[in-house]
Amino acid sequence: MAKANLFYAQSGGVTAVINASACGVIETARANGDQIGKVYAGLNGIIGALREDLIDTSKESVATIAALRHTPAGAFGSCRYKLKSVDENRAEYLRLMDVFKAHNIRYFLYNGGGDSQDTANKVSMFSIKEGFPITCIGVPKTVDNDLPITDNCPGFGSVAKYVAVSIREAGLDVASMCESSTKVFVMEVMGRHAGWIAGAAGLAAEHEGDAPHIIVFPEIAFDQKAFLNKVKDCVKRFGYCAIVVSEGAHYKDGKFLADAGGKDAFGHTQLGGVAPFLANMIKQELGYKFHWAVADYLQRAARHIASATDVEQAYAMGKAAVQFALAGKNAVMPTIVRKPGKTYRWTVGEAALSDVANIEKPMPRDFISADGFGITEKARSYFAPLIRGEDYPPYKNGLPQYARLKRVLANKKLPAWNE
Amino acid sequence: MAKANLFYAQSGGVTAVINASACGVIETARANGDQIGKVYAGLNGIIGALREDLIDTSKESVATIAALRHTPAGAFGSCRYKLKSVDENRAEYLRLMDVFKAHNIRYFLYNGGGDSQDTANKVSMFSIKEGFPITCIGVPKTVDNDLPITDNCPGFGSVAKYVAVSIREAGLDVASMCESSTKVFVMEVMGRHAGWIAGAAGLAAEHEGDAPHIIVFPEIAFDQKAFLNKVKDCVKRFGYCAIVVSEGAHYKDGKFLADAGGKDAFGHTQLGGVAPFLANMIKQELGYKFHWAVADYLQRAARHIASATDVEQAYAMGKAAVQFALAGKNAVMPTIVRKPGKTYRWTVGEAALSDVANIEKPMPRDFISADGFGITEKARSYFAPLIRGEDYPPYKNGLPQYARLKRVLANKKLPAWNE
Repeated sequence: MAKANLFYAQSGGVTAVINASACGVIETARANGDQIGKVYAGLNGIIGALREDLIDTSKESVATIAALRHTPAGAFGSCRYKLKSVDENRAEYLRLMDVFKAHNIRYFLYNGGGDSQDTANKVSMFSIKEGFPITCIGVPKTVDNDLPITDNCPGFGSVAKYVAVSIREAGLDVASMCESSTKVFVMEVMGRHAGWIAGAAGLAAEHEGDAPHIIVFPEIAFDQKAFLNKVKDCVKRFGYCAIVVSEGAHYKDGKFLADAGGKDAFGHTQLGGVAPFLANMIKQELGYKFHWAVADYLQRAARHIASATDVEQAYAMGKAAVQFALAGKNAVMPTIVRKPGKTYRWTVGEAALSDVANIEKPMPRDFISADGFGITEKARSYFAPLIRGEDYPPYKNGLPQYARLKRVLANKKLPAWNE
Repeated sequence: MAKANLFYAQSGGVTAVINASACGVIETARANGDQIGKVYAGLNGIIGALREDLIDTSKESVATIAALRHTPAGAFGSCRYKLKSVDENRAEYLRLMDVFKAHNIRYFLYNGGGDSQDTANKVSMFSIKEGFPITCIGVPKTVDNDLPITDNCPGFGSVAKYVAVSIREAGLDVASMCESSTKVFVMEVMGRHAGWIAGAAGLAAEHEGDAPHIIVFPEIAFDQKAFLNKVKDCVKRFGYCAIVVSEGAHYKDGKFLADAGGKDAFGHTQLGGVAPFLANMIKQELGYKFHWAVADYLQRAARHIASATDVEQAYAMGKAAVQFALAGKNAVMPTIVRKPGKTYRWTVGEAALSDVANIEKPMPRDFISADGFGITEKARSYFAPLIRGEDYPPYKNGLPQYARLKRVLANKKLPAWNE
């Protein structure tokens, strides 16, 4: 019988380093060619498996696979598609089995967040019941940093670095202009349910008066009066106020600030935009001239300023996932384990998918300062090592050179999938 | 008599490299200590001269001045403050003369855009009439790239690089997600009157289908139907559409898209935000899921991804300004002259301030493609060399280390300025 093949898929929102995990998977599989046949990657994630759109990564050169390490976003395509439970949609699970059987796939590596780990776990259990056991290994990924057990999630460190660098730079800009012009700057960052990303921006403030002066967390109900007082105080003391706000900032009743009734030109509720909302509130109540920025995808795609620590960990997770599979493990996910001690050191751990699936890790309350607008020393100690080191992509003509894949699909052997 | 001192001021919106010009000024002045005494920098630009808030740069170490080369924003503070004409406000000009006399200042180097060059020119003429001639030299600066005569403006190349890198990265992100999620991404960039910055983002598209697919310029009246057709076509052909829009995008009647009637939560016209406006228009008319970003100050402060060419030119302009002053020139500004030939080479030229003052250089129509949504090869040839080279700042603990100045003020010798 031919060596078993491996199926790898990217899932959910992409990051600056998810391809570094893919690189770790493919290079490690290639290095173990005596045990693993081909690595197929799902075109657009798990949808690729259902449609039998399998990218044959053996058609990609060594250099192209190596370049994945410095290429942002999902090189094989990702998707927002969650498999339902087996009871609800048994046909999907059967189809996955058919595709895996048809292509001699015995390993399934799923690179995603909590939802994806849940899916991988379900596939593992289903495959055992069906008598065609698939080794299912998760590869952690999420900019939101909300997976349990693992110390942090690949993808997060690079967003953290981007937001800290950006607010430091924009803060200097506002400081330059504040005597006669802009006094308030609001930068909106990702994080609908947890303030990990917003909190990491706080690393930029190393000295009294440094930006950011205020962080608005989704963990703390928004108190308009306290917020405006703090803005006023900052402008008085430092001449300006630089604010980082999480997209998930909300009132006590749970209503998002960004959904607070703003209308667009068509009369529809303005989607997104808590930064302009806060900026306008400040203008209205305090009269300060403002600017605002919404980084959106720029922050999670910013491979040009990725954290070297994050890149290394993303690669290590991909590599470890293959090693776990070869070691006969199943339904587990490699994790990042922070070693005790003052100097940051980490190692690869292991978590059962069932313990990871669908659990969101909130930011601890003691990461947030007593007034609710800043981070504590404890948070700083946690965040600081994750943004360390630069890992610049190669440039040509002033632009970063990212991998361009051929994405050759394997020949289909099954009837089309009826979606 | 003591050697004459030099007054240097930063003016208007700051850039990622205006401090590189300051570095060029101060280092060159220090190297010519036999002719130039102290370099005073205006605290918050020309306002500092009126208030007699003169930063004594001799108190800053060699290392700190050298670090200005890699520090974004205005290290001495800038301002939005334009001197009126002599007829309108003679008192301001007399005050400048008083401050210059009191501190033995015979050189005035003004680092700014067209307005600032106009002011420098006026000060020069006034000082001659007053019998205390000041050598006035402009130092070009503007992210908008709208100064005449000079091939390009220091500050522009770095914004250009930032927007091209950002749309390349965000484009890859959208491409990854478009099968089942976001299909349209809109990134708003600066440029109220000219599309230089938006145009430069076009460099990111090197192959068929690369982002950005559409650029919305302020030079071309917005045609909603043509725009929506193009968006639809892109999604059909490439699966997604990445759009760069200039903040100055407007309708045929001159009305800004961003001012098209959107109301915020307080019922006021929404300020800024052409990106969310376009994104919502696309959602409304075509139904595509979207994301949008507004880079705002992040783009012009992004020293972490500055263009090495831009940094070099910014430094060279500061250096040349001092050399011009020492050579007995007056009321001139150094310029960047592009040499003919296929390989990009440049040299320092010279322009009279009177020829630079208050003239905005528009982007040529033949830089924009026939359909109005892209750039031509001619534009590409112009833009490409300006973003070349990386000039990374030093990092510590994962964050760029920017200069922290002492900003020691010279002792005041005059009564307070009555503003």
